[in-house]
Amino acid sequence: MWRLLQFPLCPFSRKVRFMLAAKGVTVELVRVLPWDKPAELMALNPAGQTPVLELDGTAIANSAAICDYFEETVSRTPLLAGTPEERAETRRLTAWFDQKFYAEVTVPLLSERMYKRLYLRQPPDGTALRQASRAAEVHVDYLDWLLERRRWLSGAAFGLADIAAAAQLSVADYLSGLQWDGHEPSRIWYSALKSRPTFRPLLGERMEGLPPPDHYDKLDF
Amino acid sequence: MWRLLQFPLCPFSRKVRFMLAAKGVTVELVRVLPWDKPAELMALNPAGQTPVLELDGTAIANSAAICDYFEETVSRTPLLAGTPEERAETRRLTAWFDQKFYAEVTVPLLSERMYKRLYLRQPPDGTALRQASRAAEVHVDYLDWLLERRRWLSGAAFGLADIAAAAQLSVADYLSGLQWDGHEPSRIWYSALKSRPTFRPLLGERMEGLPPPDHYDKLDF
Repeated sequence: MWRLLQFPLCPFSRKVRFMLAAKGVTVELVRVLPWDKPAELMALNPAGQTPVLELDGTAIANSAAICDYFEETVSRTPLLAGTPEERAETRRLTAWFDQKFYAEVTVPLLSERMYKRLYLRQPPDGTALRQASRAAEVHVDYLDWLLERRRWLSGAAFGLADIAAAAQLSVADYLSGLQWDGHEPSRIWYSALKSRPTFRPLLGERMEGLPPPDHYDKLDF
Repeated sequence: MWRLLQFPLCPFSRKVRFMLAAKGVTVELVRVLPWDKPAELMALNPAGQTPVLELDGTAIANSAAICDYFEETVSRTPLLAGTPEERAETRRLTAWFDQKFYAEVTVPLLSERMYKRLYLRQPPDGTALRQASRAAEVHVDYLDWLLERRRWLSGAAFGLADIAAAAQLSVADYLSGLQWDGHEPSRIWYSALKSRPTFRPLLGERMEGLPPPDHYDKLDF
């Protein structure tokens, strides 16, 4: 069985776990904290980042490479389907959440609300949190705009863009970085994802010493 | 003909241009500067980033989505070839240069040596430049390590990882951010790329008011 090196609040680990569950691929979870630079993680991925998949010494690192690998090798539940143009749209939106949402929202929240609290024992920087909150509002507005025009994020079918977005949003939501009021299209979409047996188990996990807000794992939020 | 919205020092535009040239796809170049937020760029890509390809109102944004699109639709010169495991390695290294090298080396160089000079009319921050220089040294050491074991970056065949790396390195080199002494494997590899007719034209372009160092477009550097 593949082993997945990951930790509960890593958005890219969540993306890979949701993707693998949708594909019906089971993996053994191995918890590692990248900032401790654990030897096994560094040996399998010189970038020092989670997630990494490992099987009999073969490693696949980087969440995009992992997702493409399983999309190519496991035909069940295509997540990057359609015409080349539709696939390009799925990839554009996947990159949007992997890179833009991550940099503008997830990174400052993880830094201010997780790393400073659990490791540096410092208070968060209010300015950084307000900037992240404003950026999150713009992103969820864009999500609303897309979902007013499409059933799923990149078109008519559930796919990798929904998975990438849910991974980033769920970490931001755990860290009290999202405001759902006034965002009905996004709320309906996210509630549908939360009820999926392929995503729901992720919402039951906790980072010790850092509880999520009450609404975090509720379907009615 | 496809139109490509890009500018000379955008590493992701260089990646797409090198990739399209290797595939034999010709495009019309349209120069846009993302920080001016030009209306056409914003309309075609809400992320406000270059590169974007446009044909008859259809836009493809994000360099990874563009490269995958042409890899799927143009069979000439496969750039993401081999087994699923080999393709995953090409994707891991492509992401390494697109994300890690970009964040640690290209972004600070563009910020300190291009944006501050041409737009803010401010001197660069020496500390940021020294950090970028140290990071570049670590990356080129890793490139040496790979090239001592492989003919090309991700294996026996030239491919997307070489293109992504050349795109980032060439921008860093334009901005005097690389030190080639003591890096023979990387130097030999980069010299071979510089001599390719698919890459060489890029090295002839200049950003006004910001000349590159003398060695920048020379094959013997």
